[in-house]
This record gives sequence, C-alpha cells and structure tokens, in this order.
Amino acid sequence: MEQVGYINPSANLDAVFSALADPTRRAILARLSTGEAAVQELAEPFSISQPAISKHLKVLERAGLVERDIDRQRRPARLCAQPMADAVAWLEEFRNFWSGSFDQLDILLEDLKTAEETPNE
Amino acid sequence: MEQVGYINPSANLDAVFSALADPTRRAILARLSTGEAAVQELAEPFSISQPAISKHLKVLERAGLVERDIDRQRRPARLCAQPMADAVAWLEEFRNFWSGSFDQLDILLEDLKTAEETPNE
Repeated sequence: MEQVGYINPSANLDAVFSALADPTRRAILARLSTGEAAVQELAEPFSISQPAISKHLKVLERAGLVERDIDRQRRPARLCAQPMADAVAWLEEFRNFWSGSFDQLDILLEDLKTAEETPNE
Repeated sequence: MEQVGYINPSANLDAVFSALADPTRRAILARLSTGEAAVQELAEPFSISQPAISKHLKVLERAGLVERDIDRQRRPARLCAQPMADAVAWLEEFRNFWSGSFDQLDILLEDLKTAEETPNE
C-alpha cells in the first residue's frame, strides 16, 4: 500500500502501525526517547546482532519514526515521534468505545426504556 | 511472539498494532463503530471477497479488537475497542516528544546556557 515519493496519510499509518508491531522496535523507540544512539549502543541491551538492529532501524525510518545522521560516522539514530500523533489521532476516534462512555449510554437508554414500559403508579 | 492461552501485554500490543497496520482492517473497525455487522455487510463497501473479509476479521479477533456472535447464524462482528486503550497508553509515553514540549525545553536550556556564558555587563 505504500507509495514511493508521495506520502499518503493512510499509507503512512500502515507503516507506523506495522513498525510499532514489534517489541524490539518499540524498545528501540523507548531507548531513543532518552537520547540519540548509534547501532552498537542500541544492540547492547538486546541479544541480537547489529545487522538485525539496522534492519529494525530501517523499518522505523521508513515509518518516519527515526532519522539517522548521515554526516556523522556512527550514524546515530534519533527519535521522530510526530507520526505517533497521527496514530493516536486515529485511535482517539474510538475513545468513547474503550472508555466505556457508550456502554454507560446503553445502560441509561435501557433504564429509560424500562421506566417507559413500567405503568405509572 | 504471540503466546496461545496466555495474554502477555507486549504480545498483545504486537497483535493490536499489526492488526491496525492495514487500511481495510481500519475501515472495518470504523464501520463496526456504527454497530455490529455480518461479513456480507462488511464486504459490500469494499471491492474484496467475503473470504478476504473473514480473514481480516480473524486478524482483528486475534488482537481482541472484534468479537463475533457464535450463536447467531450471520455471526455478526462487534467492535471491542479496549485493546486500543493499551496502544494509546503506550504511545502516550512519547507525547512530550510529538507535542514539541521537549523541543521547547531544549530551547529554554539553550537560552539559559547562552545567558550564563554571556559576561554580565
């Protein structure tokens, strides 16, 4: 679904959610929230190779969640959290459903219905 | 990463983000936010087959985002938005980064540093 050379908001949500669907990539983002880091530093806490970390970084870069400094030798990676805002904006549309507001509305409507059906005394 | 018979929070985030990484599945969730629907109704607005919709529903079910009524013949699907709350909770940890608060803090610290370095007149 991703289109090259043209950022389609939906296609970017695909890439963002897909990038977030891996625990190592989420851990890398959490690590980068404390400051930029090179591949070697990122590989240390995980029992995976540097090439594997580089692969994860590429996925994160394609989603726009990470950028790397091409001018510096260690090519440190840096967090770009902005695409997360789009992901949250999409999820927020459903907030009434997960916060239970709609359930409470259902209960209220059910109560009103019962009250109407019950003959007045 | 998904473990059968044991809901590991991290494994569930994997499944939730992965389920959300597809535009058809996101559209199905948006449709279900207006009320339950059977596979046939869900397939109508998309130019894809009912078996393809069923496959997407299975992915959404595994992530806990949808449940289906096994007792009724049409097996209508229903939105279960709760796992979205976990996804948002994870993303919220990064809010300061995407809302620019940390950038502003950086600017403030930079200003303070410059002020200290400038000799008093």
